[in-house]
Amino acid sequence: MLESLNVKLASYYEEMVEIRRYLHQHPELSFQETNTAEYIKSFYEKLGIEVRGNVGGNGVVAKIYGSKPGKTVALRADFDALPIQDEKDVPYKSLVPGVMHACGHDGHTATLLVLAKSLHELRDELEGDYVMIHQHAEEYAPGGAVSMIEDGCLDGVDVIFGTHLWASEPTGTIQYRVGPIMAAADRFEILVQGKGGHGAQPHRTKDAVVTASQLVVNLQQIVSRKVNPVDSAVVTVGSFVAENAFNVIADKAKLEGTVRTFSEDVRTFVEQEIERTAKGTCYTSGSDYEYLFERGYPAVINHEEETNFLVEVAGKVPGVNRVVETEPQMGGEDFAYYLQHVKGTFFFTGARPETEENYPHHHPKFDIDEKAMLVAAKTLGTAAVEYQSVKLEAPVPEQAL
Amino acid sequence: MLESLNVKLASYYEEMVEIRRYLHQHPELSFQETNTAEYIKSFYEKLGIEVRGNVGGNGVVAKIYGSKPGKTVALRADFDALPIQDEKDVPYKSLVPGVMHACGHDGHTATLLVLAKSLHELRDELEGDYVMIHQHAEEYAPGGAVSMIEDGCLDGVDVIFGTHLWASEPTGTIQYRVGPIMAAADRFEILVQGKGGHGAQPHRTKDAVVTASQLVVNLQQIVSRKVNPVDSAVVTVGSFVAENAFNVIADKAKLEGTVRTFSEDVRTFVEQEIERTAKGTCYTSGSDYEYLFERGYPAVINHEEETNFLVEVAGKVPGVNRVVETEPQMGGEDFAYYLQHVKGTFFFTGARPETEENYPHHHPKFDIDEKAMLVAAKTLGTAAVEYQSVKLEAPVPEQAL
Amino acid sequence: MLESLNVKLASYYEEMVEIRRYLHQHPELSFQETNTAEYIKSFYEKLGIEVRGNVGGNGVVAKIYGSKPGKTVALRADFDALPIQDEKDVPYKSLVPGVMHACGHDGHTATLLVLAKSLHELRDELEGDYVMIHQHAEEYAPGGAVSMIEDGCLDGVDVIFGTHLWASEPTGTIQYRVGPIMAAADRFEILVQGKGGHGAQPHRTKDAVVTASQLVVNLQQIVSRKVNPVDSAVVTVGSFVAENAFNVIADKAKLEGTVRTFSEDVRTFVEQEIERTAKGTCYTSGSDYEYLFERGYPAVINHEEETNFLVEVAGKVPGVNRVVETEPQMGGEDFAYYLQHVKGTFFFTGARPETEENYPHHHPKFDIDEKAMLVAAKTLGTAAVEYQSVKLEAPVPEQAL
Amino acid sequence: MLESLNVKLASYYEEMVEIRRYLHQHPELSFQETNTAEYIKSFYEKLGIEVRGNVGGNGVVAKIYGSKPGKTVALRADFDALPIQDEKDVPYKSLVPGVMHACGHDGHTATLLVLAKSLHELRDELEGDYVMIHQHAEEYAPGGAVSMIEDGCLDGVDVIFGTHLWASEPTGTIQYRVGPIMAAADRFEILVQGKGGHGAQPHRTKDAVVTASQLVVNLQQIVSRKVNPVDSAVVTVGSFVAENAFNVIADKAKLEGTVRTFSEDVRTFVEQEIERTAKGTCYTSGSDYEYLFERGYPAVINHEEETNFLVEVAGKVPGVNRVVETEPQMGGEDFAYYLQHVKGTFFFTGARPETEENYPHHHPKFDIDEKAMLVAAKTLGTAAVEYQSVKLEAPVPEQAL
Repeated sequence: MLESLNVKLASYYEEMVEIRRYLHQHPELSFQETNTAEYIKSFYEKLGIEVRGNVGGNGVVAKIYGSKPGKTVALRADFDALPIQDEKDVPYKSLVPGVMHACGHDGHTATLLVLAKSLHELRDELEGDYVMIHQHAEEYAPGGAVSMIEDGCLDGVDVIFGTHLWASEPTGTIQYRVGPIMAAADRFEILVQGKGGHGAQPHRTKDAVVTASQLVVNLQQIVSRKVNPVDSAVVTVGSFVAENAFNVIADKAKLEGTVRTFSEDVRTFVEQEIERTAKGTCYTSGSDYEYLFERGYPAVINHEEETNFLVEVAGKVPGVNRVVETEPQMGGEDFAYYLQHVKGTFFFTGARPETEENYPHHHPKFDIDEKAMLVAAKTLGTAAVEYQSVKLEAPVPEQAL
Repeated sequence: MLESLNVKLASYYEEMVEIRRYLHQHPELSFQETNTAEYIKSFYEKLGIEVRGNVGGNGVVAKIYGSKPGKTVALRADFDALPIQDEKDVPYKSLVPGVMHACGHDGHTATLLVLAKSLHELRDELEGDYVMIHQHAEEYAPGGAVSMIEDGCLDGVDVIFGTHLWASEPTGTIQYRVGPIMAAADRFEILVQGKGGHGAQPHRTKDAVVTASQLVVNLQQIVSRKVNPVDSAVVTVGSFVAENAFNVIADKAKLEGTVRTFSEDVRTFVEQEIERTAKGTCYTSGSDYEYLFERGYPAVINHEEETNFLVEVAGKVPGVNRVVETEPQMGGEDFAYYLQHVKGTFFFTGARPETEENYPHHHPKFDIDEKAMLVAAKTLGTAAVEYQSVKLEAPVPEQAL
Repeated sequence: MLESLNVKLASYYEEMVEIRRYLHQHPELSFQETNTAEYIKSFYEKLGIEVRGNVGGNGVVAKIYGSKPGKTVALRADFDALPIQDEKDVPYKSLVPGVMHACGHDGHTATLLVLAKSLHELRDELEGDYVMIHQHAEEYAPGGAVSMIEDGCLDGVDVIFGTHLWASEPTGTIQYRVGPIMAAADRFEILVQGKGGHGAQPHRTKDAVVTASQLVVNLQQIVSRKVNPVDSAVVTVGSFVAENAFNVIADKAKLEGTVRTFSEDVRTFVEQEIERTAKGTCYTSGSDYEYLFERGYPAVINHEEETNFLVEVAGKVPGVNRVVETEPQMGGEDFAYYLQHVKGTFFFTGARPETEENYPHHHPKFDIDEKAMLVAAKTLGTAAVEYQSVKLEAPVPEQAL
Repeated sequence: MLESLNVKLASYYEEMVEIRRYLHQHPELSFQETNTAEYIKSFYEKLGIEVRGNVGGNGVVAKIYGSKPGKTVALRADFDALPIQDEKDVPYKSLVPGVMHACGHDGHTATLLVLAKSLHELRDELEGDYVMIHQHAEEYAPGGAVSMIEDGCLDGVDVIFGTHLWASEPTGTIQYRVGPIMAAADRFEILVQGKGGHGAQPHRTKDAVVTASQLVVNLQQIVSRKVNPVDSAVVTVGSFVAENAFNVIADKAKLEGTVRTFSEDVRTFVEQEIERTAKGTCYTSGSDYEYLFERGYPAVINHEEETNFLVEVAGKVPGVNRVVETEPQMGGEDFAYYLQHVKGTFFFTGARPETEENYPHHHPKFDIDEKAMLVAAKTLGTAAVEYQSVKLEAPVPEQAL
């Protein structure tokens, strides 16, 4: 059965590339991906696969029923693009000015569509059911995952798997991690409201540049002294703006930044400590502040058993030659929300182009090695099919996540 | 003689107001004051007074010859306006959008013109000669004083007096100070060049926001620890700009600020210590910096004898009811340059309007009490005439400036 | 065989307690543990077990030869005590004023002695050989491990296991971790040499209190900005001394602190960045510095296969009811050195007393649950015996340590 | 009359030196100067001059009555010594181990005694009365001035003059200053109470070293930003003590420092802002603080008319060849209190030894040029006698103090 699946996937590789390149030429921004959604839906309809559109927005969910009883396995691929001008010199370059699949979501979609087609063709041999979650709007908070879940995309699902094509690792690599694999990514603003005045008369003012500078310095102590050193946390002030004539004392200064954490406790603690630091620092200079903390996606926390299961099966997938643990990544992903509802794991599939130069995700010249899509499809497919034989039981040894 | 002068000045008060209001309606920006210069020149030409235009730019210099031998006394008034929209509701409001006499230079000019006319009429009784320096471009560095001096306006001059109509003090007040009365006003820029990157990966960057914030904090120690506490100095960072997306680490940050000092030693020391602080702070974070220090006007350092002389004569001027020492002012004035070449003193003439509200210099609703012009004219005139009888000799006691 | 071993260990539990209590009453400080070493050596001699004293100092090494060929397994227990006054109210309280087994090394020793006796008695059934490393001086750098290794204690050894009785976890718990489990613990000193003077004349000084304070603040940025957020690091300034009259400006300030890291790269990087920070900060104030960085024990880095092996066998040990991954501990251990020479793993054996209150390691009232010694003996014994059947080969999947 | 006085003083120069040297050999610490007081009292009694001992402690007050009506002029000399070991190699070296006249108070006393004797002898020609205030305990707060004033030493006094022999200026120099001439000198303590712990676990602590360091840095902003730049202020933290093992996080840190100011408003403001800064900084780290601010002597504020009067008369004193304005001195003096009750002025009398090396006040090798005592006596005497002819009236011009 697995062998049949892998052979079938390999035979559809050309189609996978075609789909990916079509999508690459026709990218759509988050929450505006109506044509892409329609494209996906049609694909399923043509094959006679059960499909539902407008799931929690532009989401599309298809379902394949195996002929034998079993678990319900969900697989997820996102399909939105980014507000970046494609600067590659390739035939399949984006046709939409200023919009580009610079993160590989086109490849995710092609992978899942072809995997679905293959599973559908093998449905007579399949145990269990398979839910294909095509998610819109991963790139832009609040993301599409929450509304798709609210609209039922996880109903009856036992487990979920997802992958990201990962351009920093060579094709053939699978990167996994038990527990936190991607960070919670939050945003904050602090407005320091001092009292402006003449640059020669500091005593009549409350110098917002000095206060905000002191605040930036004081904020360093959250990570260096207040957070447990074995927990990871980042507090970055990315923007500091107090634009004035040189001979004026600043009335106000605006700071904007991001917080990255892997645990909810640390996240909440850092949120509070930023305010504490702002409050104490502004008190010292007699200034006021406004503080805004906007939560982005939570951390992606992989379940242990499912991750260990993936490690085991990935080792056997043809084309996979390296299964390695990854460090936690400080970037964010709304796959996090699925894992708050059902068991599962999110992993990286190496997709580094074999060209001399290669570019990071979100770069105007970003590209993937398309052969990685086949690796991703086989790994997701193998995990989905093999999961039918997993016995769900409490493990020994227990592990702290 | 003095009595005649004062009576004459009083009799021309209406004309003084007329001139001032005409100029108020027709303000011109620094280095663009050609019409005003022409107006001043014509005034002298009509009276048959020797006058020279285009002195060091738009400057105008007139000379009145007394019939008896004596010293040559210079009196200076500036005549440029500011890029400020006049928001007063008065008949003589500025007719030029966005340009306004918001610092009283119109009043200075009217004062000097009428004083010149009066002295000219009394020339048969006068000892010595009188040089009327009408200076352009005081508001904007490098100012008009340097080029007018280079063009000979101080040639043969023994002493110079100048005043500023001062809206924070009531009419009838003369404020003087031996030694430094107005500060050297310099400008600096520091560009902190770090290395930008992703907000979640501080270890791959050199965070310019943190480095520049640390620098602002460290700069405080120049005034608090390095400058002699009995010297006055101000180091203000007025502008801090590192504008970025919230989730990015800043590549660079630009600081702009001003330094105010009263002594050349302190000025040079502070200039050096800012660089030392930038260098040490940037070294700590492995960043680079660019440092620019632009000297503005030097401090206005009043000569002791001439200032004491002014205090003495001012006490006898009709209309002057209060002669008080002023604290040094942290603002700048290019009158400083004249005092580097000849003896003299610069003082403030109270000119607070008697209206309920009154506005600081450079405010869109700034105005003066016009009666103060008469006080200024009498004080300058008395100083000029009385200075003829001063014996120039080294004083006891000596005073440290 | 394992069953025999466990039964035998259980039958010697009383003796284990006796030994532990005797040692508890007779603690000796690091590098002064001659009586304890003699006690251990005698124990082996009485049983006719091969034993060598004065190994690398006060170390003692015994060897048990199984009757069948196999691997050579080392087990390590440390036996020094601490300069702490025992404040417990128990019959086996320390008899030595100011010296106490406040870290459980007495228990480690009792565990290993009884385990050795049991293995010796079962030697006819044993495969392989067993090296009992009784290490002196773990509590005080440079520790006893290095000199014992130099003196041959690891010669011919294939693998090493060690455990620490751990009072924060309940008896029955085994805590493991692949990779770093205990931190590198280093020490640094920074002497800031400014220029002292009168408290009213900062401009004639280089204020060492301000410079050193600024340095402490700047040091926070090493952890908050310079170290990868997924790496753990601690930079603590524990001591800041600039003791002077209140009205004097400090000539110098002395900082002392500790650095904790888990990777050599981070360790070396932090060592360098502390100096960079001192240099830049002192440059800013024109001060000098002296910097000393003393490396303590390196991080304890557990080998992956041996750790996974331990997890597997520990799950089967009678009395072990919980095998959990631990967070890395920021404390140091010179067990680190053994793992630089041979494969192996270091783990924690829960030993929390069942009393209402319990005290942390190094506390004057610290105690252990003695039953934990039996758990430790069984786990070490099981690991040692079972390791004979491990096939030593490269694992799939590969894991990043 | 003045001539007689000066001649008489000159004739007693030998006696002045003798007295000074006797006192120099027999120094007594502040509040313990009973023998010195007795010595002074006897001096007056022998001459038949009215004298009162135990004035407000060890103070001694003598009074000389002129034969003609006039004003009552007080002259003050202090007579306590310092806890310093005399290291000079001179015949009149201190005979008391560890106690020394290292500030010239012995000279002050000799000056005033001989001046009193001379005035007494000229009493038939004198207008007005003369109060000789011999003050104990100037070196040690709360000083002797307050209690002597409370005990009536200024009753009926119209004006007071005092001088300090000043070793940094050559003999023949008089230094004066209108307004503040010596600073208010206050003391503060801040105890930062954090929460100590293990050096590897900052997240369980409130690191007092970091908080107190941040506080020292933040305190710099009081002088650099909050105090008017034309006012002088010093905030010095002289002592920072948090002495711990290197691998511990500090529980508390103790700061001690001094504040120097010239105006009561600034003094009170700085006192408050130190607390504000401590409060805000400790809030940021969740720590507590204790704050103590002990006021020392207030600033010595010289009255304008009396200072100008002194300048005038000093210029005519034989032996005075230089009358110069001094910068304000940041040191303290309890002469301040007298000037809060009566008009007067405090000035410096140059007393630099003509030896190659010379040492600052409070130095173990400090000495004065004894000829300066004669200059001081003549200047004080002249001021006292001439003051009889001053017309007490409001001055023009007014001056801001």
